Amino acid sequence: MIDRRSLMLAGAAGLVLPGVARAADLKKVRAAIDTQLPDNIARIQDWIKNPGIAAENFKMEEACAYSMGLLKDAGFQTVKRMPTAGHPGIFATLDVGAKRTMGIYFMYDVKQVNPDEWSTPPFAARIVNKPGWGQAIVGRGAINQKGPQAAFLAALHAMRAAGQKLPVNLVLVAEGEEEIASPNFRDVVTDPQVLAALRKCEGVIIPTAWQARNGAVSINLGAKGAVEFELIASGERWGRGPQGDIHSSYKAMVDSPAWRLVAALKTLVSDDGNTVMIDGFRDNIRPLTAREKELVARNAAGASEADVKAGFGVKVWIDDLPFPQAMERLAAEPTLNIQGLVGGYTGQGGKTILPGRMTAKCEFRLVPNQTKAEVLEKLRAHLDKRGFADIEIKVTGGYGPTETAENSRVIRAQQAVYARSGAAATLYPRLAGSWPGEIFTAPPVSLPAGQFGFGHGSGAHAPNE
Amino acid sequence: MIDRRSLMLAGAAGLVLPGVARAADLKKVRAAIDTQLPDNIARIQDWIKNPGIAAENFKMEEACAYSMGLLKDAGFQTVKRMPTAGHPGIFATLDVGAKRTMGIYFMYDVKQVNPDEWSTPPFAARIVNKPGWGQAIVGRGAINQKGPQAAFLAALHAMRAAGQKLPVNLVLVAEGEEEIASPNFRDVVTDPQVLAALRKCEGVIIPTAWQARNGAVSINLGAKGAVEFELIASGERWGRGPQGDIHSSYKAMVDSPAWRLVAALKTLVSDDGNTVMIDGFRDNIRPLTAREKELVARNAAGASEADVKAGFGVKVWIDDLPFPQAMERLAAEPTLNIQGLVGGYTGQGGKTILPGRMTAKCEFRLVPNQTKAEVLEKLRAHLDKRGFADIEIKVTGGYGPTETAENSRVIRAQQAVYARSGAAATLYPRLAGSWPGEIFTAPPVSLPAGQFGFGHGSGAHAPNE
Repeated sequence: MIDRRSLMLAGAAGLVLPGVARAADLKKVRAAIDTQLPDNIARIQDWIKNPGIAAENFKMEEACAYSMGLLKDAGFQTVKRMPTAGHPGIFATLDVGAKRTMGIYFMYDVKQVNPDEWSTPPFAARIVNKPGWGQAIVGRGAINQKGPQAAFLAALHAMRAAGQKLPVNLVLVAEGEEEIASPNFRDVVTDPQVLAALRKCEGVIIPTAWQARNGAVSINLGAKGAVEFELIASGERWGRGPQGDIHSSYKAMVDSPAWRLVAALKTLVSDDGNTVMIDGFRDNIRPLTAREKELVARNAAGASEADVKAGFGVKVWIDDLPFPQAMERLAAEPTLNIQGLVGGYTGQGGKTILPGRMTAKCEFRLVPNQTKAEVLEKLRAHLDKRGFADIEIKVTGGYGPTETAENSRVIRAQQAVYARSGAAATLYPRLAGSWPGEIFTAPPVSLPAGQFGFGHGSGAHAPNE
Repeated sequence: MIDRRSLMLAGAAGLVLPGVARAADLKKVRAAIDTQLPDNIARIQDWIKNPGIAAENFKMEEACAYSMGLLKDAGFQTVKRMPTAGHPGIFATLDVGAKRTMGIYFMYDVKQVNPDEWSTPPFAARIVNKPGWGQAIVGRGAINQKGPQAAFLAALHAMRAAGQKLPVNLVLVAEGEEEIASPNFRDVVTDPQVLAALRKCEGVIIPTAWQARNGAVSINLGAKGAVEFELIASGERWGRGPQGDIHSSYKAMVDSPAWRLVAALKTLVSDDGNTVMIDGFRDNIRPLTAREKELVARNAAGASEADVKAGFGVKVWIDDLPFPQAMERLAAEPTLNIQGLVGGYTGQGGKTILPGRMTAKCEFRLVPNQTKAEVLEKLRAHLDKRGFADIEIKVTGGYGPTETAENSRVIRAQQAVYARSGAAATLYPRLAGSWPGEIFTAPPVSLPAGQFGFGHGSGAHAPNE
């Protein structure tokens, strides 16, 4: 949802962390934002109209170049394309000789779309009336992440137009593979030049626009990690069953990779599918602290269980848990989810084949102190030990969990800015969703990192974003 | 593969079952076939160019009407469209006042195609050179079943042109749902008028063109039954998990229909996926008789294991069985096969969703004396007993196994005709593939029934048929 306040604050907030800007200066900035509003809205729309979709390798170079152009326009002095084994990252700096430096994280890729599910074309970025909210941009990336990022850039444009010097230096790192779980982003931030720049930062902020309708906002003290992978059973690797698809009547004499995948999957979770049963998977889980439990309980008490259930189309929580316990499980429990099963005949009706290959698209969500490398190693060992050495684990991306201390300077600054702006801010210990914050919070970068910003939006990964 | 001999014999063979035609008359028929050869080839091509695909509800009425026209052209006196709950059947008669009557089974639907996999368009019916074979029609239905059926019709055209009276009356029943497992064909044959006509028949023949390159052919004494169904887990029916797809991070508090399906599937088969473990599933299995085992062993001895393995891309048989035992298992063992798994995100890479619905496309192959109703009942009871009452069983079609006695008149006549034509015929106890023969061999029709014919072809259900 676009209004002057959102645009301004989402961007400006990160900049005023280290000190309170003078009221007269802020007034000039606000005036510049008013003048620039049409340009700022057009910038969001135009960014949405220039999508790059990493999962489909769709126009990624163009999207990278376009995003680099936006950074240059906003005043970044160095904007560098950072090649990786996949799609390039971006490293940009804006040095104003300030005492402190803030790290900013951008992504320039967006999630895939199914245009049939959208009421307006996903890359048309049309402005529509959202009853109860007003005018809003609808398009893939509107909330995740082009809207909030463009709001941040709008603040830079406004400060420049208002003749205001930034109170902090900026180090910006961006990637084009966030939606495929950041397989190469660690390589970008550990580039010696980038790492040296990041180490000067107070912390790293990813701009967000997650305010509730009443302006309330959560400050997340961390997020689960996410690791995406495919488990693939095939006659080719198994040495049993067919190389390709054969007529299904031969099932009586030929082994089935599909049944093999089912058998392997079944060993990974409890009978109800809710507890990961991989050998040693729980070894490094740090249980929630008393403080974290208290924060979850406070959040649960402030939410409407009926609304949450209606939003999900869910009647009961796992194990018929009461809402506060379900919310605690959401924060505390690592998961193994099946995103999709696909293989063999997938069209209408049936087809008499014995498929030579079957795939489960899976995803771990990890909690501290689990790591991506650790759980993948344990998954491999678990399968091997049960005779499933042939089941391929094809990792498509991922990162571990992230944590930022409640008393860190970045969190305290967020609380101060929200309070000054009249936005009720609730601390939340751990986002169940994931972002590659671990790349900042873990060594060698080791910085506080988290979401921050003002504004409204919804529909990340969904139609009519 | 098209040659004069195939076209003639495939059709004529069925007709000469009751008695040996005089040599002079056969000579006239052969001459007529020579004259009509271009028309006969064009008829196959044109039939292929007019496809009906039941699985996709594609042009089924047109395909039915087209096929009825072919029957009228070939001399059938009555040709009647038989409405069903699905796509219509056809009932046709050709009464020449002969002493005996033969039943003929046709299908007018074809299997789905993926044109990308074909070297020529699947419905272009092009004539291409097949090295080692000569000119052949390539198209969906060329072998299954338009080629063999058109050859049968060609024989009727030739006999009429040669002024020859058929030695038998014909009762022809056809369906348009063979490729979706004949969900409504029983209703067609048990129509009082059709049933009365079929009861006058010696048996029922489905035309085939399955000769080996050296002319050898199998006489099958039966076939396994096939039952196609989907197993569907959904939040909607389960009352747990989401109604639709939700963000995967909520797996920690929301149940997963995908994991539920995996758990249910795992109970249905042994760990190796090769033995059906449904309660009571084996109760009515009649083991192979000593004679049947002897026939299987004789066939295995005549086949090249290396060729069969190469054809399937298979290195080892189930349980590392030697070839003769693997072939015996093929004839003896009922199966539960997964044709495909589909649900959630099935595109490139991953997508962070917890799917609300997951489907396994499955298929039973049954042996005497199992029945379709019996195994579906046992599947339901098995799932219910284990708490999976919510798993939907969506049956898309099927029928039980079929058996025809080795000493029946139809089998003896087949052996005589093959012998007279110099085609080495081997008895085979039970085809692992399936056809709706049970509808003829089981009450109330209770006739011998089986495949019969001359000619060559391959690629049923595959590209470049």
